[in-house]
Amino acid sequence: MENIISVFWLVPVASLIALGMALYFYFQMKKEDEGTPRMREIAQHVRKGAMAYLKQQYKIVAVVFIVLAVVFAVMAYGFQMQNPWVPFAFLTGGLFSGLAGFFGMKTATYASARTANAARKSLDGGLRIAFRSGAVMGLTVVGLGLLDIALWYIILNAAGVNSLITITTTMLTFGMGASTQALFARVGGGIYTKAADVGADIVGKVEADIPEDDPRNPATIADNVGDNVGDVAGMGADLYESYCGSILSTAALGATAFAFNPVMQIKSVIAPMVIAAVGIFLSLFGIFLVRTKEGATMKQLLRSLGVGTNISAALIAVASFAILYLLGIDNWVGVSFSVVTGLLAGVIIGQATEYYTSHSYKPTQKISEASKTGAATVIIKGVGTGMISTMVPVVTISVAILLSYLCANGFQFEVTAENLSRGLYGIGIAAVGMLSTLGITLATDAYGPIADNAGGNAEMSELGEDVRKRTDALDALGNTTAATGKGFAIGSAALTALALLASYIEEIKEAVARLAEAGSQHMQEVLAKIQDIPSFMDYFQVNLMNPKVIVGVFVGAMAAFLFSGITMGAVGRAAEDMVQEVRRQFREIKGILEGKGTPDYKRCVEISTRSAQREMIFPSLLAIIIPIIVGVVLGVAGVLGLLVGGLAAGFTLAIFMSNAGGAWDNAKKMVEEGHFGGKGSECHKATVVGDTVGDPFKDTSGPSLNILIKLMSMVSIVMAGLTVAFV
Amino acid sequence: MENIISVFWLVPVASLIALGMALYFYFQMKKEDEGTPRMREIAQHVRKGAMAYLKQQYKIVAVVFIVLAVVFAVMAYGFQMQNPWVPFAFLTGGLFSGLAGFFGMKTATYASARTANAARKSLDGGLRIAFRSGAVMGLTVVGLGLLDIALWYIILNAAGVNSLITITTTMLTFGMGASTQALFARVGGGIYTKAADVGADIVGKVEADIPEDDPRNPATIADNVGDNVGDVAGMGADLYESYCGSILSTAALGATAFAFNPVMQIKSVIAPMVIAAVGIFLSLFGIFLVRTKEGATMKQLLRSLGVGTNISAALIAVASFAILYLLGIDNWVGVSFSVVTGLLAGVIIGQATEYYTSHSYKPTQKISEASKTGAATVIIKGVGTGMISTMVPVVTISVAILLSYLCANGFQFEVTAENLSRGLYGIGIAAVGMLSTLGITLATDAYGPIADNAGGNAEMSELGEDVRKRTDALDALGNTTAATGKGFAIGSAALTALALLASYIEEIKEAVARLAEAGSQHMQEVLAKIQDIPSFMDYFQVNLMNPKVIVGVFVGAMAAFLFSGITMGAVGRAAEDMVQEVRRQFREIKGILEGKGTPDYKRCVEISTRSAQREMIFPSLLAIIIPIIVGVVLGVAGVLGLLVGGLAAGFTLAIFMSNAGGAWDNAKKMVEEGHFGGKGSECHKATVVGDTVGDPFKDTSGPSLNILIKLMSMVSIVMAGLTVAFV
Repeated sequence: MENIISVFWLVPVASLIALGMALYFYFQMKKEDEGTPRMREIAQHVRKGAMAYLKQQYKIVAVVFIVLAVVFAVMAYGFQMQNPWVPFAFLTGGLFSGLAGFFGMKTATYASARTANAARKSLDGGLRIAFRSGAVMGLTVVGLGLLDIALWYIILNAAGVNSLITITTTMLTFGMGASTQALFARVGGGIYTKAADVGADIVGKVEADIPEDDPRNPATIADNVGDNVGDVAGMGADLYESYCGSILSTAALGATAFAFNPVMQIKSVIAPMVIAAVGIFLSLFGIFLVRTKEGATMKQLLRSLGVGTNISAALIAVASFAILYLLGIDNWVGVSFSVVTGLLAGVIIGQATEYYTSHSYKPTQKISEASKTGAATVIIKGVGTGMISTMVPVVTISVAILLSYLCANGFQFEVTAENLSRGLYGIGIAAVGMLSTLGITLATDAYGPIADNAGGNAEMSELGEDVRKRTDALDALGNTTAATGKGFAIGSAALTALALLASYIEEIKEAVARLAEAGSQHMQEVLAKIQDIPSFMDYFQVNLMNPKVIVGVFVGAMAAFLFSGITMGAVGRAAEDMVQEVRRQFREIKGILEGKGTPDYKRCVEISTRSAQREMIFPSLLAIIIPIIVGVVLGVAGVLGLLVGGLAAGFTLAIFMSNAGGAWDNAKKMVEEGHFGGKGSECHKATVVGDTVGDPFKDTSGPSLNILIKLMSMVSIVMAGLTVAFV
Repeated sequence: MENIISVFWLVPVASLIALGMALYFYFQMKKEDEGTPRMREIAQHVRKGAMAYLKQQYKIVAVVFIVLAVVFAVMAYGFQMQNPWVPFAFLTGGLFSGLAGFFGMKTATYASARTANAARKSLDGGLRIAFRSGAVMGLTVVGLGLLDIALWYIILNAAGVNSLITITTTMLTFGMGASTQALFARVGGGIYTKAADVGADIVGKVEADIPEDDPRNPATIADNVGDNVGDVAGMGADLYESYCGSILSTAALGATAFAFNPVMQIKSVIAPMVIAAVGIFLSLFGIFLVRTKEGATMKQLLRSLGVGTNISAALIAVASFAILYLLGIDNWVGVSFSVVTGLLAGVIIGQATEYYTSHSYKPTQKISEASKTGAATVIIKGVGTGMISTMVPVVTISVAILLSYLCANGFQFEVTAENLSRGLYGIGIAAVGMLSTLGITLATDAYGPIADNAGGNAEMSELGEDVRKRTDALDALGNTTAATGKGFAIGSAALTALALLASYIEEIKEAVARLAEAGSQHMQEVLAKIQDIPSFMDYFQVNLMNPKVIVGVFVGAMAAFLFSGITMGAVGRAAEDMVQEVRRQFREIKGILEGKGTPDYKRCVEISTRSAQREMIFPSLLAIIIPIIVGVVLGVAGVLGLLVGGLAAGFTLAIFMSNAGGAWDNAKKMVEEGHFGGKGSECHKATVVGDTVGDPFKDTSGPSLNILIKLMSMVSIVMAGLTVAFV
């Protein structure tokens, strides 16, 4: 027991080291030269716009958080529907998730001009700065995540909460805070960035025939601000939520699965945290492996990035065996194989993503080729490819679910209480394994937008074609390595959502227990009938012929489509406003297209900001309200139907949208590289239409779906008390 | 008992009357004048092309049917995995479904020139011919459907099959024949028509700036052939399958629900057939109500059509009370209210479809307006609108499921054996109610493509602007009234699929019983444990925490996307071939665009035919193979997960695709009516891109999904014996 508790201290230590290293990389980056006065000026414009937007967004989100916290407080203190820690845990989750986005974005906005400046000299110089700045984001996310987890674990233990089940389910509510923050960040940021991007592309590229990020385009600054608030801050909050969600849900599963044995229970609660802590060290190791030699070729750089992420992933697989053995986890070999299953699934999904979205492969090449017959066939092909691309990830995740489940429970398929709990723990820990090296995988992901912004800065500062070419190459480099990271993120989201289903069941039991303790005769009887998962399923009739379950599945599938439809519509509306504004400026400001008049960048920034803030509220609230309504109307059976339906349809829809969007983007790049007539040709215009349609697919609706799925689970968990009141 | 048996004779009588009236309308139509020699010639071209294609398609489908029938024969006679009637029932289902499509198409190809000719004189003359020809299709479908049902019921009774459960589950296998035929017809026809349509639009409308159906366009004939093989023959086979599926699954549910009481059992088996028979009389009554006065206005015609369908629907609601009362069905009031619930749901879904796809309402107007900022925003808006439009139908069908379930079982929510069986019977009979007046609703639906083809004939025969305007008006008229029919078709598909879930459970029980009877000790034990639905669910652990179920749901959702992706891709490929061919002809045939050279229509017809035949096989086989694989690998729990996941995601995806496609179509029509610059403007080109993308959405992938869902259920049912062998 003593040993285990001392191992736990690895967790806060690793988190502080991560934060320390993030700070170190940050200051290292700040020491670099920001370039010419023009470069500084543009960087400052972008930084100011981004920070101003984020402040506005946080203000609105703060209102939502205060309202929800009050609701939780009333539920906890007024009606004993929740335990007293919930409102506070919820608030810290939101706060830390927001901070992760904020720090990541701050770094990115300082790094872009510096990256562009370094790229004036060499490719590898640009890579070094951009990658290290991406690492700041990666390390901040994992550092803050583990810190929040460690703090709450310490606080709840110190406060004398005895039951590990109560501790872990309470901690899950800070996951809800993180999810809520993440959804707002993804949706708001996603609308912001795509309104600007779509608007800038339509008028600039298609109508006025000027290049991307051209300073004559009034929407350029807004577009670059958008990359930061959407792709950086949004992604930071998103992955913070995924990271914490996987660890917390696995800990909660461990607490239930091994409730019969206190020592094993505490071990299994700590195990995911320790794996994550070791993952931080391995990420750091991987980050330092990414070395860039003076004058390195693209291929060498790509290898260097790949080596860093792959070695970290391979090492965590090996380390899991050691950690689980040393902790003395029951069936440690099997559970370790669950981790390996998860990692392999992430790699396969990543490879499949790359196959379907990179123009090195047939599917995207065919989309590009379809431009010969116009924009319509580009769209038709892209939609078709995106839908077909769902097969490999779904089959992979299905096999991973079955294998990680079976490995962890010793290949027992029969759904008994013990087999289920152990198997579910395996599914959870597979997700933890996938995300444990987030420190480095996020670095390869976050440096993409930094390189992209560096390109924007170079273009606007008129640094010349060769600098732009280098930043484009950096961006393309990132897309390739980021595929694996995205595979891990998507795969872990599905596994975590599954683990959260089990947490929901546990939370319902806790809620029933609270009411039973408070003296309800009925609840005492219910409690006796729902002691383990199979009897729980039986009591609440959560089987597939119960019409409540079926209706829940229907509503879950619909929720995913409805949510995507609303966010697509929001981008459409906002982009139209932007197009009208840019057209107005081209018409009214004299000499703007000759580079003599100054565009009114600020108006465009304002339009994006206003649209994003107005449009993000409704879809985000929907994600919170739907599970509450389903819970009250259809009860526990309906909610589980909702969550499973939402998970399956949402996961598939998210992959379709992300991959279709990615493929359109690269189909356009392929034409821009000189195929099918190259830039300015009819084929180029057709692929630009595809890319523009793909923008909200891949950067607004698609990625938001992953959060939607988990937020609906989190809301169900936190609102379990309300559902039970209607049982 | 005697009474009941005599009531049954209503069924074959009604079916023969329907077929007789279809023949009468057919000969009435044939008596009309086919117009000028040019009109006759074009009509003959289209007719020949359509018949030639259909023959080709039937050849391929025949091979599939023979192979499957042999498989079933081996399973039935070699391994006792099925009863001996299955291969024959399967074949007749396919045959009759094919016949329904064939007769419908034959009529349509004779009617189009006659409609155009009548439209030369007046609008109402055109309507009369087109609508009565549509009625031929409607009556043929319901007549053949009820005939097949009545024949098998008589044969199986005469052959001394005693158990009504065996009789009804055997009859379900002819549903599988119908589904298989329908899927090939929808997919093949859908690819054919959209390849031609998309190809013709891209080169004709967008590139060469010539109007739709212009005789200078080499793809016009293929386009008009496509309307017949896709929209007419495909729709006929599709609705034949829906119609029979709803009646057969409800009969099967009745046989199980009231197994404890032989009299009640036979009553509940016959009830859906009798409702359908009475529906035929009411449809005929409605068809005769559609009277057209000489020189009637559009509004009067629309009212006339609406009166016919609405009165039929209202009367069947009233008639259901009478039928169920006279038959003496247990809780006849409740079951009748289930029918009313179904009908109301159909009306609401129809209204919602109209709201989201007609340019009389905001959503489509906004899509049209988005053309001011180009094709990309048209697509983004359309996708957004289509996704949002899933909400009302899903909520409506969810409420209908719960209400028709509760009405039929006396508002018992607890999932006991009896409550479930009775409730499910209510869900089934709600679907039967929705489709019982298919005779007239299909008439309003099928006359659309006839009017469309009449327009094509008018254009190619150069009959002048006013004739084309009248046929366009007829087409638009049909779209409005058809919305209700489509609501009924979509809604009933969801309810029928649910009813089929219960049939699957029954079939598994039958298969276990067969093996138990053959002496398997294990199966005897199993059989004892799965006597009613709740204990069945318990034994096979079909609850939402069983990973097999969850994986099944995932695969089901993915199957819907994969299938749509493949059909979208097929249309894309085929359309590209068509575009290349039309461009080649424009380039190589001299004077073609001046109307001097003759286009090579035949080559285009060949391209569509070849593409459709090549591309339809893989997706169709997929629908058959997926449930078999899932059954073998994941067993009963996995299959039920697959079917529920496929149903929920497929239903939602189908609505999204159909509505987005419909909205794009009408957004384009709105511009063509003179808004936002009218024909030939940039806005027009942008909406044509939307319409082109929407073509495969609404006419290939979307409608095929409804069949996919049911075919997967049918395959699972027929293959139950195979799944059980692995239990």
